[in-house]
Amino acid sequence: MIEYRTLRVALLGAGSVGSQVARLLLENREELAARSGADLQLVGIAVRNLDAKRDVELPRELYTTDAETLIVGADIVIELMGGIEPAKTYILQALNAGADVITGNKALLAEHGAEIFGAAEQVGAEVYYEAAVAAAIPIIRPLRDSLAGDNIKRILAIVNGSTNYILDRMDRFGDSMADAQKTAFELGFLEADPTLDVEGYDAAQKATLLASLAFHSSVPASGVHREGISQITPEQIQAAKDAGYVIKLLAIAERITDEDGTEGVSARVYPALVDRNHPLASVHGGNNAVFVEAEAAGPLMFYGAGAGGVQTASAILGDLVSAARRHVAGGPGLGESTHADLPLLPIGSVTTKYQISLLVTDRPGVLARIAGILSDGGVSVETVQQTVQPGEEDDATGTATLVIGTHAAREAALQATVEALTASEDTQAVVSVLRVEGAE
Amino acid sequence: MIEYRTLRVALLGAGSVGSQVARLLLENREELAARSGADLQLVGIAVRNLDAKRDVELPRELYTTDAETLIVGADIVIELMGGIEPAKTYILQALNAGADVITGNKALLAEHGAEIFGAAEQVGAEVYYEAAVAAAIPIIRPLRDSLAGDNIKRILAIVNGSTNYILDRMDRFGDSMADAQKTAFELGFLEADPTLDVEGYDAAQKATLLASLAFHSSVPASGVHREGISQITPEQIQAAKDAGYVIKLLAIAERITDEDGTEGVSARVYPALVDRNHPLASVHGGNNAVFVEAEAAGPLMFYGAGAGGVQTASAILGDLVSAARRHVAGGPGLGESTHADLPLLPIGSVTTKYQISLLVTDRPGVLARIAGILSDGGVSVETVQQTVQPGEEDDATGTATLVIGTHAAREAALQATVEALTASEDTQAVVSVLRVEGAE
Repeated sequence: MIEYRTLRVALLGAGSVGSQVARLLLENREELAARSGADLQLVGIAVRNLDAKRDVELPRELYTTDAETLIVGADIVIELMGGIEPAKTYILQALNAGADVITGNKALLAEHGAEIFGAAEQVGAEVYYEAAVAAAIPIIRPLRDSLAGDNIKRILAIVNGSTNYILDRMDRFGDSMADAQKTAFELGFLEADPTLDVEGYDAAQKATLLASLAFHSSVPASGVHREGISQITPEQIQAAKDAGYVIKLLAIAERITDEDGTEGVSARVYPALVDRNHPLASVHGGNNAVFVEAEAAGPLMFYGAGAGGVQTASAILGDLVSAARRHVAGGPGLGESTHADLPLLPIGSVTTKYQISLLVTDRPGVLARIAGILSDGGVSVETVQQTVQPGEEDDATGTATLVIGTHAAREAALQATVEALTASEDTQAVVSVLRVEGAE
Repeated sequence: MIEYRTLRVALLGAGSVGSQVARLLLENREELAARSGADLQLVGIAVRNLDAKRDVELPRELYTTDAETLIVGADIVIELMGGIEPAKTYILQALNAGADVITGNKALLAEHGAEIFGAAEQVGAEVYYEAAVAAAIPIIRPLRDSLAGDNIKRILAIVNGSTNYILDRMDRFGDSMADAQKTAFELGFLEADPTLDVEGYDAAQKATLLASLAFHSSVPASGVHREGISQITPEQIQAAKDAGYVIKLLAIAERITDEDGTEGVSARVYPALVDRNHPLASVHGGNNAVFVEAEAAGPLMFYGAGAGGVQTASAILGDLVSAARRHVAGGPGLGESTHADLPLLPIGSVTTKYQISLLVTDRPGVLARIAGILSDGGVSVETVQQTVQPGEEDDATGTATLVIGTHAAREAALQATVEALTASEDTQAVVSVLRVEGAE
């Protein structure tokens, strides 16, 4: 028998992920030792209520309500409580005591990442967070290590399974938003309060983490542009389909240059049109995928389940093996890479293509006048499709639908143009403005 | 300015990958320093011919024909010469001198991996080979690190872009094998001697590396079962399409249990039927994808370009940053993980579903007799489709096509059953036997 060095592992939280981590850690102790070079001893699980019902049966003596005592003397602390406090306090305590920290807490890292990574760097410890962005899908290591010699241009990511499930149902079965949300809730894809998912907060936190990592910059969560999917209509879904697109809620991290030539980063979340031939278009149900475009590597995609207790536990255990190997090898942890220090640029600086649907009064010269507004706004038109409302073909003052596809334009110019379109006497309503993502 | 420690990098080979590595290394030296903590100094490029034409213009003084002198004193040696010798000798020299080695040489690692990893372990150096399996697609690190706490069940991989291109053309445009190969050659997807690609040797080397890594065992390349695509016909492609499948050349690494209960590994390469809804089915053209099924993480897929000079260079530079970080942090390299030490089991022990196409003489009782042969062989039938040849419906001794889909069966039983079918008086010809992969 090989004698392995023992590392003391403290687990904070025994929810759906935590209980699976504990189970796998106990069940696979020998394999984990052989793979990491250390005997990983689970010294305790901090919970709020010792008597709560758990997903997994674990030795009762592991549970404690005293997280702070548990943290003392741990070599590695796994935080799976979620939320900002007391998770943040415990993580800082662990780091200050020299322990490595593994966490899946995207909200905490998005809001307080700089402080946490700073504390780790002070003591040469490391913070692992593979589970924070896309659960079991390896994306942190590929960005931090595999692509460390490349320059990333853009990341388009489906990182919220709930909204992908909802949009996929609307796309495939013609559900209304309300019905799709109801089904998502019944199947456990959506929380009782759907706001975090549906309004894009969860995806925005992940966009913050992806952008920081990809562009070696500290991206402030507060500056991330965020739009949810609650306003998406079955009509938009159908129109997208007719035009060869699918609507996906994307978390986007992109290296951009603004009008003044300032290089910076855009991090944003919104529902966007994606070509049906794009690899992201075939990400169905509650799955996640991260599509990365790098200068040398070209396009890459990482696909899998983006949620689930045992799936997320896989990522946590991968981090645990990494942390243990580092303890065995010695040397300081790899700090946060922020050397590029690029500014987060506002949504107005972003350049994308758009698809605009308008209801206009169908009278002579309307198309020319609408085209003129776009042209005046600096928005160049790529395609126009005009549909006169059925039964009104002979009515010279009837209603027509205009679907306008634009060439790439600055968001600021586009927004001003949409305002001008709204104000036009020809316009009855601006029905839909959606960005097109994933084009060259 | 931060003062970085200097690390001396020697490059062996200046082909399509090597020249891109050199270019990126020189162009991105500052970024690489900031990301790795070390100033990576390219001390020379060993080539056979100083005057050969190169893809990239590089400082002439970097070139040398004296690889052995270049290796002496290098901290990191990047081997991109390909082939077994002299690459193997140089790599062993580098490792014995304490240098880390980065290589994309799949043939060498598949054949002599144990010796090379052993030499690295002796001196605490590390061998990096992210580029060896799927070029820029991160797969070595995800398997070695991200999934280190999980147990992998199966890997189905499209790791040869040439054959994927050929099969994709046959599937999408109805090309013959010869025409598809001709186009692949004209577009640079295929070498003048297509054997390595078309007969599955390249994929088999990659299957060896994937199986070793995934199952923590030293898998001998010589035992990997290999079948190429040269016998695939347009008729098989069309029949697959009609049945909702696509034919893909798969490199498969699977944890299996044989009839006697022996746990082991299967590593194999063959063209297989994949359901059109499987994520691997939408991998078109020369792209690669690695589909990993893990116990906790569930299914994951890694997708991107599987070849190309600059794409492969991205993987090499990622390894370079990792190697540099390890030099900065100190401590020994991570050795090869072979603790599980599972045996490589023969193809006969593999269990899959099959689709068998037979031409039979259409006379009373033929279906019952054919079904009897399958049943006697222990192969259970899931579906049968019988098609009488057009124009012969009334001919009692005409020809019928039987397409039989089986339940999962042992390869050994299946092979014996196919022999029995071939010997049957009812059978005119066994037209096609293909395995079905990717099912639950």
